[in-house]
Amino acid sequence: MRAWRALLGAQHRLSRVLDLELQAAHGTSLHDHEVLIILSEQPGGACRMADLADLVALSRSGLTRRVDRMAESGLVSREPCPLDRRGVLARITEAGWQALAAATPVHVAGVRRHFVDVLASDELAVLAEALEKVAIDCPGTGSTPGVSTSAEAADA
Amino acid sequence: MRAWRALLGAQHRLSRVLDLELQAAHGTSLHDHEVLIILSEQPGGACRMADLADLVALSRSGLTRRVDRMAESGLVSREPCPLDRRGVLARITEAGWQALAAATPVHVAGVRRHFVDVLASDELAVLAEALEKVAIDCPGTGSTPGVSTSAEAADA
Repeated sequence: MRAWRALLGAQHRLSRVLDLELQAAHGTSLHDHEVLIILSEQPGGACRMADLADLVALSRSGLTRRVDRMAESGLVSREPCPLDRRGVLARITEAGWQALAAATPVHVAGVRRHFVDVLASDELAVLAEALEKVAIDCPGTGSTPGVSTSAEAADA
Repeated sequence: MRAWRALLGAQHRLSRVLDLELQAAHGTSLHDHEVLIILSEQPGGACRMADLADLVALSRSGLTRRVDRMAESGLVSREPCPLDRRGVLARITEAGWQALAAATPVHVAGVRRHFVDVLASDELAVLAEALEKVAIDCPGTGSTPGVSTSAEAADA
């Protein structure tokens, strides 16, 4: 359990310090930044809300609140999903792309300073390999986001 | 950045699967369980809301919402802080202790199955050491919760 506690502790502390640095530099929260990164990697910069909740590990209601706030700030827009009548797409806006571009150097420098630079290269290699193994072993890995949600709910 | 991505990926997937397992077995979310664990480790089972937000890496408003919901379910109570006139204490209730006791075996088994058992013992050792190093290196480590918040805000 020591490794597990260490994982939680590192994750909490890293999130907090990276969030403080982003907020201080650009007023973007780490959580908003994470949503922007994910949207920026989707085709057309858009993603179904249901899939996005899955990708950022948030409940539907938690994601709705976050995307509501981000839409108020103009970082994302919402639109009906063409493939799913009940679905809603979140899409990164031009202002969202600009916020992402502005915040990314601060975020990358923070990850480097508080994570990469703290560790030896062999530690980073073991960490990468071990944590990829953990992720792959988790139920639902490898399927597409929309599919994995229902498959995992059925598993549980 | 591969190790960083792996850390995020493992954290997301583990959180999701552990949350699904806890919800299926006891209707407790992983987030609520985490709050209960932290409160159970505080003297008297109580913690200032400001310090709790820090320990669970949530914004004040995010923690307020969560504790509101948990108070509605009877898992925690709120009371004025005797040491700080403007402060509020969250305290684990008897029902909270029972929910914690009921959910803990499921949670521990999940951590074992999806994390500990997936890794070799030398990987776990490197992971523990490396991630403890990362946590210790983050600003604010080692100070008490109430103090670290203001110190870190000042740093940023």
